[in-house]
Amino acid sequence: MNAPLSRQMLNLAQPTDDGWYERVREHLDLILIDHAHLEKRAASTALSMIFRYTGRAGLARQLSAVVQEEMDHFSRMLDVLEARGVELVRLEPAPYASKLVKAIRSEEPYMFMDKLLVAGLIEARSCERFAILSENVEDPELAAFYRELFETEAMHYTLYTNLARDHFSREEVKARLQELAVVEVEALRAGGDIPRLHSY
Amino acid sequence: MNAPLSRQMLNLAQPTDDGWYERVREHLDLILIDHAHLEKRAASTALSMIFRYTGRAGLARQLSAVVQEEMDHFSRMLDVLEARGVELVRLEPAPYASKLVKAIRSEEPYMFMDKLLVAGLIEARSCERFAILSENVEDPELAAFYRELFETEAMHYTLYTNLARDHFSREEVKARLQELAVVEVEALRAGGDIPRLHSY
Repeated sequence: MNAPLSRQMLNLAQPTDDGWYERVREHLDLILIDHAHLEKRAASTALSMIFRYTGRAGLARQLSAVVQEEMDHFSRMLDVLEARGVELVRLEPAPYASKLVKAIRSEEPYMFMDKLLVAGLIEARSCERFAILSENVEDPELAAFYRELFETEAMHYTLYTNLARDHFSREEVKARLQELAVVEVEALRAGGDIPRLHSY
Repeated sequence: MNAPLSRQMLNLAQPTDDGWYERVREHLDLILIDHAHLEKRAASTALSMIFRYTGRAGLARQLSAVVQEEMDHFSRMLDVLEARGVELVRLEPAPYASKLVKAIRSEEPYMFMDKLLVAGLIEARSCERFAILSENVEDPELAAFYRELFETEAMHYTLYTNLARDHFSREEVKARLQELAVVEVEALRAGGDIPRLHSY
């Protein structure tokens, strides 16, 4: 996989620059802890959408698979941490997700569309970062794990954006996805150089 | 499986009386809808405990398996409903769980103990009801499904109470479980004869 292809696939407004891995490589254990917490939050996001939008066609079933996969990743991140002798301590997350969530409109059905697209963009950026990690980490087992996660999370990105297209017109989804992709890059920058999966 | 054995295994203060199934049998579809929502709530309970108590030994890993299993059950309940042409509409839950949650003490570490034991008791009662459903519903496929669920949810009951024993003395856990089991029967009665999985 090369960076331009992933960028195009994932609809990110700006790819991660080449220096990101260099900036976080000294803090790999922190990135792994942050990533474990992220999987837990991703499960929670999908589950809360099931609670809110159970009646929407196909949503409950598709998102319940997402919850299961994110919890499986969380559990496997616990294995990764344990193998490295790293404790899953609490960690202040990057401001990334909370900045993005602020862009979600408060009236339905726009809230529904925005929640799906924001969740999709977070999956897309995570996915891009997993690809970078898989290409750069020295531990071959961890590299293989990130390669696998890249593929699953790319499917989650597709799932969220397809759910949006199931309920709104392609034009509306495309336009809003472009707007939110710009916000996503700003949200990434808001973290400064704090070493996190979603740092700049 | 006979009722006295399950009662003993599950530490319920009072078994469901023989009339329960007769009282709900006319409303089986409502029970199934209620049950689907219950699986979703069970996943949410386990996930929120992971958020709150991630640092506790073994908890995150064990409860992440619970989240996955509850979401699998939720998804299979969607299949059951679809096969019967029943829509997963919103449904006022029995007051059961909210009554039980009120018995959770507000100071740690007692809150932690109580959350585990309340979750365990809800699993235990659900489990007992699944056994009753498996023995009484006419659809053989649904009966087999409930037999299977009985077994998984019995394991969840054991998992929650064992987690309590990992962190507190057996005597403390036993005493509090007995107290909460009495509250559990009162919580069940609070629902009156509204047809729900946790109705009286």
